[in-house]
Amino acid sequence: MPRHLPALLDQIHTEAQALFGQGRVADYIPALGEVPPRQFGMAVALCNGETHAVGDAHTPFSLQSITKLFTFVLALKLVGDELWQRVGREPSGAAFNSIVQLETENGIPRNPFINAGALVITDILTTRYAHLDYALLGALRRLADDPELHWNARIAKSERDTAHRNMAMAYFMKSHGNFHNPPELVLDNYCRQCATEMSCSQLAQATMFLANKGRDQSLRGEPDEQFLSADDTRRVNALLLTCGAYDAAGDFAYRIGLPVKTGVGGGIVAIVPGVGTVAVWAPELDAKGNSVLGAFALERLVQLTGWGHNTL
Amino acid sequence: MPRHLPALLDQIHTEAQALFGQGRVADYIPALGEVPPRQFGMAVALCNGETHAVGDAHTPFSLQSITKLFTFVLALKLVGDELWQRVGREPSGAAFNSIVQLETENGIPRNPFINAGALVITDILTTRYAHLDYALLGALRRLADDPELHWNARIAKSERDTAHRNMAMAYFMKSHGNFHNPPELVLDNYCRQCATEMSCSQLAQATMFLANKGRDQSLRGEPDEQFLSADDTRRVNALLLTCGAYDAAGDFAYRIGLPVKTGVGGGIVAIVPGVGTVAVWAPELDAKGNSVLGAFALERLVQLTGWGHNTL
Amino acid sequence: MPRHLPALLDQIHTEAQALFGQGRVADYIPALGEVPPRQFGMAVALCNGETHAVGDAHTPFSLQSITKLFTFVLALKLVGDELWQRVGREPSGAAFNSIVQLETENGIPRNPFINAGALVITDILTTRYAHLDYALLGALRRLADDPELHWNARIAKSERDTAHRNMAMAYFMKSHGNFHNPPELVLDNYCRQCATEMSCSQLAQATMFLANKGRDQSLRGEPDEQFLSADDTRRVNALLLTCGAYDAAGDFAYRIGLPVKTGVGGGIVAIVPGVGTVAVWAPELDAKGNSVLGAFALERLVQLTGWGHNTL
Amino acid sequence: MPRHLPALLDQIHTEAQALFGQGRVADYIPALGEVPPRQFGMAVALCNGETHAVGDAHTPFSLQSITKLFTFVLALKLVGDELWQRVGREPSGAAFNSIVQLETENGIPRNPFINAGALVITDILTTRYAHLDYALLGALRRLADDPELHWNARIAKSERDTAHRNMAMAYFMKSHGNFHNPPELVLDNYCRQCATEMSCSQLAQATMFLANKGRDQSLRGEPDEQFLSADDTRRVNALLLTCGAYDAAGDFAYRIGLPVKTGVGGGIVAIVPGVGTVAVWAPELDAKGNSVLGAFALERLVQLTGWGHNTL
Repeated sequence: MPRHLPALLDQIHTEAQALFGQGRVADYIPALGEVPPRQFGMAVALCNGETHAVGDAHTPFSLQSITKLFTFVLALKLVGDELWQRVGREPSGAAFNSIVQLETENGIPRNPFINAGALVITDILTTRYAHLDYALLGALRRLADDPELHWNARIAKSERDTAHRNMAMAYFMKSHGNFHNPPELVLDNYCRQCATEMSCSQLAQATMFLANKGRDQSLRGEPDEQFLSADDTRRVNALLLTCGAYDAAGDFAYRIGLPVKTGVGGGIVAIVPGVGTVAVWAPELDAKGNSVLGAFALERLVQLTGWGHNTL
Repeated sequence: MPRHLPALLDQIHTEAQALFGQGRVADYIPALGEVPPRQFGMAVALCNGETHAVGDAHTPFSLQSITKLFTFVLALKLVGDELWQRVGREPSGAAFNSIVQLETENGIPRNPFINAGALVITDILTTRYAHLDYALLGALRRLADDPELHWNARIAKSERDTAHRNMAMAYFMKSHGNFHNPPELVLDNYCRQCATEMSCSQLAQATMFLANKGRDQSLRGEPDEQFLSADDTRRVNALLLTCGAYDAAGDFAYRIGLPVKTGVGGGIVAIVPGVGTVAVWAPELDAKGNSVLGAFALERLVQLTGWGHNTL
Repeated sequence: MPRHLPALLDQIHTEAQALFGQGRVADYIPALGEVPPRQFGMAVALCNGETHAVGDAHTPFSLQSITKLFTFVLALKLVGDELWQRVGREPSGAAFNSIVQLETENGIPRNPFINAGALVITDILTTRYAHLDYALLGALRRLADDPELHWNARIAKSERDTAHRNMAMAYFMKSHGNFHNPPELVLDNYCRQCATEMSCSQLAQATMFLANKGRDQSLRGEPDEQFLSADDTRRVNALLLTCGAYDAAGDFAYRIGLPVKTGVGGGIVAIVPGVGTVAVWAPELDAKGNSVLGAFALERLVQLTGWGHNTL
Repeated sequence: MPRHLPALLDQIHTEAQALFGQGRVADYIPALGEVPPRQFGMAVALCNGETHAVGDAHTPFSLQSITKLFTFVLALKLVGDELWQRVGREPSGAAFNSIVQLETENGIPRNPFINAGALVITDILTTRYAHLDYALLGALRRLADDPELHWNARIAKSERDTAHRNMAMAYFMKSHGNFHNPPELVLDNYCRQCATEMSCSQLAQATMFLANKGRDQSLRGEPDEQFLSADDTRRVNALLLTCGAYDAAGDFAYRIGLPVKTGVGGGIVAIVPGVGTVAVWAPELDAKGNSVLGAFALERLVQLTGWGHNTL
């Protein structure tokens, strides 16, 4: 454990602010575009129970694609390896919303973290749960230890109103037999899911089981403390490392070397197996849809702590 | 360190042999197709100096794409981050010899481990070395600690005679200004390089610097013991994890979770940072060009040692 | 005019029957798959008023993609060259239902005769007509001179129930701003349109304006006898020649050399400018979705009459 | 036959000059880029023996891709329909130098008029002729009735020096077994062929057999007056109509409606079957590589003569 983590976070906070203005807030969903750009928060949760935070680490933000991590884990717990009959686990080498590979690969998305793959995951969950939105919220509330956790209904609606490309993917997969529920219903669930809001400190908490061989420490002593098996936890982290940052996964691995999941809300969560988790949030995005300050902050943290060196 | 590594290797050796016949020896290069299929070797080199081996671990085999790891490291040492202006570091999401992305991405290969990317690396090295083949051989001899290390001239020739697709890629990149030497010359170097032969025990030795924060222990005490910087070592490993197994990188990460490099000669080398390296060889390949028994052996080793759990 | 057209048609009829069994009835729409395969009809309508028919030339069949010809002409009459802002006029070089080019060309379909292009045309007409299905039926009834002309409701429903891929295309174009009405509504219209039924003799009659510099002879003496301008007629024929036979347009041009439109119902209509029209129907299709006997019959007719030689 | 063809050509000449400056002279081959842009020539050769010309109709220019028409006809005469085993006859729906379809369609080019297809044709001819360059020159001299016809050695060399992309295609096809001679040798032939020079009046003359059911009138009374069979002539014209203008074939068919072949030297030749041929030249090109003034002149000629209306 680095001695002076709070001081390091302060240093990174200061350095990161110099990058304000280098990216652009996502505006493809109108309601998302209204978020004030110059915000930055960062939270670290350690396996030993310590937590540290700087900046806007307690401001809730829209998780967006970060929720794909949670829905994937839920689906993996529910259906196990059968899931791989409907979605691959290879990097896509293409934009997160590309439909081209669906045509050349018969409606099977490359991995669960591109849009098409996440839609299949939501389709699987929609089949299992009468009210997926509340089931998912329940799981997230438990993981984040916050009974008030909710989704932003206005952003969910804004997202649903402009979800044409995701609808296209859902129908395309349906034409290949790889979509079981009505696309309209799954998109309703998907857009609510994406609009879930957490703060950095909550997000770091909610993903701790991935740093901890699958154990959910918020449940210490309870019978289902093992939220995910150790083997599956390792596999989820592998998938986050190869596919967690859209079409910049290779660059993230190269610069940061940790399993991550990013979202167009400007959040990134990174897993340091055996050490802890890091959540960072800053709404300005680069051309590939990842947070500019967020990626910078993680890269600096890895340099300053050597955490990347332990894993790779 | 697992207590009984020799026993584990014996167990894996026995289990792996049950898979003989499930793959096919590469035959796109005629001379490669003559290798007897039912062979299996495995060697482990640990940071503490221990080495263990089973089966045909001392039989030399054709490294093929595994040499892309060594040429990439040499180029990174020589030209540093400038290298990234000529090659990307993202998984390709396509076959190792696909030319499609070169057209849509203006002659810049996705990463140094697909064929197009390795050709650019060899082009870079060809510019630097009057006799690249001997320069490379020198580096490999030093790393493998074997002054007799050589390439198989017959396989090199067989490879050169059928290198039409690689020639196509070289000329295509040249049309985009991303190839500086005559393609014919670079292909000569490339085919000799691919025909280099090592045994598993030599390969495990030669890659130890990647498990060891860049230090080459065969040089213990000599002034240039630091073969590669610790930062660059971490980055190379990250790239091996995301791009080291052709279009099965995601699947390898999921099942094995270690940086690897595979070759159509049937070899695979895996890095366990801080612990050691594992080289395995069995000529029968699966549909994506990776060794069937090799992948199985690494997956079992990770399960039995927990090495995968330490890194991810 | 060939002297013995009736005898030629009899000869072709006899020769064509030898090909029964070489193709397969379309079955992607369940209701279409029930059509008995061994049927063949052919009708010729000449500019001089003569008509000739053999075989099942008076049996109604499902027009399917042949209706794209009529909807395109209607849209061209309504909106003129503005239409080309929403659809191209180049051959696609890809399957009729491919979605790949929509992604690389920003949601603008290559031409009005591939599915995506025909959907845009139906979207344009949906905006103009409160009840497009009846407006289209009215136009077709007038051209075919049959007040009883109708669509097959069962086939329309079967088509609508399995229209997932067309829905995907509609939503994809909507995401690019190239679709103005709700996809569900346009697809309702599109599927009814495709299910329109005509016999060969009706189809030959209904397309006579294309052989006749745009004049609709069924309206001889009426004020709007000029159904389409002579210039636009020539242009429509050019488009039929380059894009009328899915991804076999080049092969059709090479073998037959006439503007054609084919449909998966097994119908083909060919235009001989200045001479007349030929409609042929036989439900068995080749791998590209065109009628085996229909293409053969047209090729023979061109060889025996020299009609192809007059135009090219 | 239009009464006042000379007057029409004068009118078109005048109108066309207003478009000077709207296009750009091809500069991808350095030597081609030196051609003065503001030139325009047009020649019409009629089946009745009349010829008419305006502007720079007697200035030789670089035929470039127009030679693909001649080599294709030579190959068709030599090997007949076997040729279609090595090249398709469908529009490509992609840029003339795209390599993507070669990968997805196993090294078989879409048609003989895109670069890859023309390279296969030149490969076929290279196999047949010890000195293809002189064999081709002989044929062109005979057709153009000019024993002095030659290629521009400087342009040929400039072209060969920058032929990397064509080399890539040749090697790619060789890797699929669809290239029999050394790419270097075929490219030598190909670049000399492209550098052949003719004037508009020669080009109109040299293609007259295509307007004349295959008969070469310059050979009137000689035994081999039938240069190409009538059937094959019709087929070549069909192919020119669907594939003769790169990826603007559909637009050319729509606007002009005649079989054409264009070249990046700024030339276009159009066939009016049964009537005659039109050659036009103006070096400024549009974005798709076709002559701006040339396309305009042909479109106007068709409007003013109605020639397009006779054929479609």
